[in-house]
Amino acid sequence: MRYEELTIEGRNAVLEAFRSGKTIDKLFVLKGCQDGPIQSIIREAKKQDTIVNYVAKERLDQLSETRKHQGVIAFAAAYEYAQVEDILKIAREKGEDPFVILLDNIEDPHNLGAIIRTANLAGAHGVIIPKRRAAGLTATVAKASAGALNYTPVAKVTNLSQTIKELKEQGLWFVCADMEGETMYRLNLGGPIGLVIGSEGDGVGKLVKENCDFIASIPMKGDIDSLNASVAAGVLAYEIVRQRLQ
Amino acid sequence: MRYEELTIEGRNAVLEAFRSGKTIDKLFVLKGCQDGPIQSIIREAKKQDTIVNYVAKERLDQLSETRKHQGVIAFAAAYEYAQVEDILKIAREKGEDPFVILLDNIEDPHNLGAIIRTANLAGAHGVIIPKRRAAGLTATVAKASAGALNYTPVAKVTNLSQTIKELKEQGLWFVCADMEGETMYRLNLGGPIGLVIGSEGDGVGKLVKENCDFIASIPMKGDIDSLNASVAAGVLAYEIVRQRLQ
Repeated sequence: MRYEELTIEGRNAVLEAFRSGKTIDKLFVLKGCQDGPIQSIIREAKKQDTIVNYVAKERLDQLSETRKHQGVIAFAAAYEYAQVEDILKIAREKGEDPFVILLDNIEDPHNLGAIIRTANLAGAHGVIIPKRRAAGLTATVAKASAGALNYTPVAKVTNLSQTIKELKEQGLWFVCADMEGETMYRLNLGGPIGLVIGSEGDGVGKLVKENCDFIASIPMKGDIDSLNASVAAGVLAYEIVRQRLQ
Repeated sequence: MRYEELTIEGRNAVLEAFRSGKTIDKLFVLKGCQDGPIQSIIREAKKQDTIVNYVAKERLDQLSETRKHQGVIAFAAAYEYAQVEDILKIAREKGEDPFVILLDNIEDPHNLGAIIRTANLAGAHGVIIPKRRAAGLTATVAKASAGALNYTPVAKVTNLSQTIKELKEQGLWFVCADMEGETMYRLNLGGPIGLVIGSEGDGVGKLVKENCDFIASIPMKGDIDSLNASVAAGVLAYEIVRQRLQ
């Protein structure tokens, strides 16, 4: 993974970025703009499942760093994404049972960075995030990861439930964190495992939860509702580490 | 604990705040200003161990919300601090072995808030922070604590090593987190305990470490140096929870 430019402006630059295979996290297009080059860009965006936002000229001017956006600005991933297969390959190469952390819509880049940092130190082979409604790999995430983003691969998938199903076929078990689950110390979290962490506000989505084999809860004694998402991820990841060490 | 005003400006207001016993985290005084009221304020600040910053008029103007600072602005704690004795009293009232989290100079208010949140949910009876070179209880900390600051008492002490010595006399054992320690799973972390978490950059200070009974390490497999401070606090606090549940 390597550092890349963060915003790409202008029709040729954006089209070129798509065609060269760069990962574009978000695309902003001038509302009502329908000419040939813009149509080509939107076609490329659809192919890559990039989210397209149609916005007013004022918004584009605000986002623009060059002041020459020509009606289109793309936000490229600061880091390159890996494929899910790359993550499994790393586990195989190390001769270890796969250990993957899946994030169901973590929105805060500081939390995302801290979780990638935890994944690295807990010996997870990679992190999987969904394409929509989630923080991407920006410079803020890279900083919060304290360098871990250079070592721990992060894959971005269209449908988290679908990815879980595919990984189950490869022998992984899935555990998600939820208050209504079984206390984590009582679960057997050994073997090839995927740990699913929910979003800051809503927890793990219904469909994703249904696809998990276990629901684990962190014991809570206090007066408030939930731990910070990156702390919860750390506590659960280290329960997996503890069981793997036994 | 209750919410309080954050900045106090002007000579009478600041002097009154000190005399009424409000906790002032920081004091900004106009450089070169030596008159009677200012001298009285500085005297009060020294009594309370408040850090005094001598700054230029431009800086004061910038900090001022009222534009009537008269050469002095105080930053009051957004929340009131508890006494160490209050924390032990809560443990006694619950009939539990005391469980206290001590922070050796956590500087990031988001980390401080997340740790207070963890302390609440892990069943710790309170958090102890040092007076100097550490984040105080500001509005940012309160927000990051997700409400936990309303329930979990935070005490501020002049000398963390001294506090550790005093608490040892009351039967507490102390464990600090350090990479060179014994793997936490192998230590007996039951009974009345104080968990010491070091600062983001430097870890636990030498003197504080010497006063601890155990040094616990979190097993680390990865390529980078350390977990985020609030994640490390969560992982260690929950190892204590696990051992208490057994």
